[in-house]
Amino acid sequence: MSHRGRFIVLEGIDGCGKTTQLEALRDWLPDSGLLPPGAKVITTREPGGTPFGHALRDLLLHPPAGQSPCWGAELLLYLADRAQHVAERVAPSLAAGHWVLSDRYHGSTLAYQGHGRGHPLELLGALHRFAANGLQPDLTLWLDVPLAEAMARLRHRAQDRIETEGEAFLSRVYYGFRRLAEGPGWRRVNGVGGPDLVTGRCKDQILDWF
Amino acid sequence: MSHRGRFIVLEGIDGCGKTTQLEALRDWLPDSGLLPPGAKVITTREPGGTPFGHALRDLLLHPPAGQSPCWGAELLLYLADRAQHVAERVAPSLAAGHWVLSDRYHGSTLAYQGHGRGHPLELLGALHRFAANGLQPDLTLWLDVPLAEAMARLRHRAQDRIETEGEAFLSRVYYGFRRLAEGPGWRRVNGVGGPDLVTGRCKDQILDWF
Repeated sequence: MSHRGRFIVLEGIDGCGKTTQLEALRDWLPDSGLLPPGAKVITTREPGGTPFGHALRDLLLHPPAGQSPCWGAELLLYLADRAQHVAERVAPSLAAGHWVLSDRYHGSTLAYQGHGRGHPLELLGALHRFAANGLQPDLTLWLDVPLAEAMARLRHRAQDRIETEGEAFLSRVYYGFRRLAEGPGWRRVNGVGGPDLVTGRCKDQILDWF
Repeated sequence: MSHRGRFIVLEGIDGCGKTTQLEALRDWLPDSGLLPPGAKVITTREPGGTPFGHALRDLLLHPPAGQSPCWGAELLLYLADRAQHVAERVAPSLAAGHWVLSDRYHGSTLAYQGHGRGHPLELLGALHRFAANGLQPDLTLWLDVPLAEAMARLRHRAQDRIETEGEAFLSRVYYGFRRLAEGPGWRRVNGVGGPDLVTGRCKDQILDWF
């Protein structure tokens, strides 16, 4: 294969169903007719898509008691995870012609650290260009699940640090995703309904896009 | 105390004697006549000057086998450590009127990640301004020990990852410090000789500066 693969990202607040949809799309893509012969589907995630990033993920989501990073350190750690993830996993896979499906990427930085924490979006763009060497997804799907429903889903499983930031923070993040999804390279997917129904909507958007 | 304290940094390649000198200066400063009444001397270091940063230091200097961070991730982790260090330790101590002595700071970023790794110095300056909120030392002392002597000293103790980068890398770092020490806010200290002799030279520079 001489062609670069495609890079699809699933974004959304915690509890929106990203992980479930990522697995469903991974199973479907080889039969979608979209992949050239020999191309594989690689699934990954941020933070923690590499072994080194996995250690960073632990630090970010489960810091030692009373040792949470300040907001600046938190942002820089997510970007360190991004740098490692792109250099070690995403860029080489795309260069080999494979399709990469990622659970979160730059959109989460913009939504959580930008709209949520208040870091300027221009600064985040500049830091992302450094960390990711300018690599942008071909398509980002935003799984739109209303905050109340996502939070209800979360009550049934262990909550990590981000998930316990509280409703005001998550509300800003949700609003951030809504704004981001109006931009180029993004598509909104209604994430309410059974998993198969939502997967069907994701497939429609992917087939329409490519 | 209503006055901001002073921020002194010791810089240099591994094996230059920073740690020894930091302790000697910490013991001397209260009797130096420089500190206003009630001011304390706070010693700290990068990376690892905070509990959270200590976990980052472990990751940076002792990564899991085969899991070294890429250069971009490495830089961002050092800056995350910086952000936490300034926010949690350096800035509050200075605001309380204390004097802060740090083993490494922005000068090491410029020497190791800039001159050593080749990251553009302007980029490092911009990242530092974000991470450290613009905080600059009042005085940076460069302990100048020739590379061959520093390396000979290191052979007698356990070497961490940076210390095993090899002579070409350390040579660029040494050259970087030499260039940096010609700039404003820096003073060169001859680091060759017995510890007490070097401490005397450090004291002279500090007394002359303040």
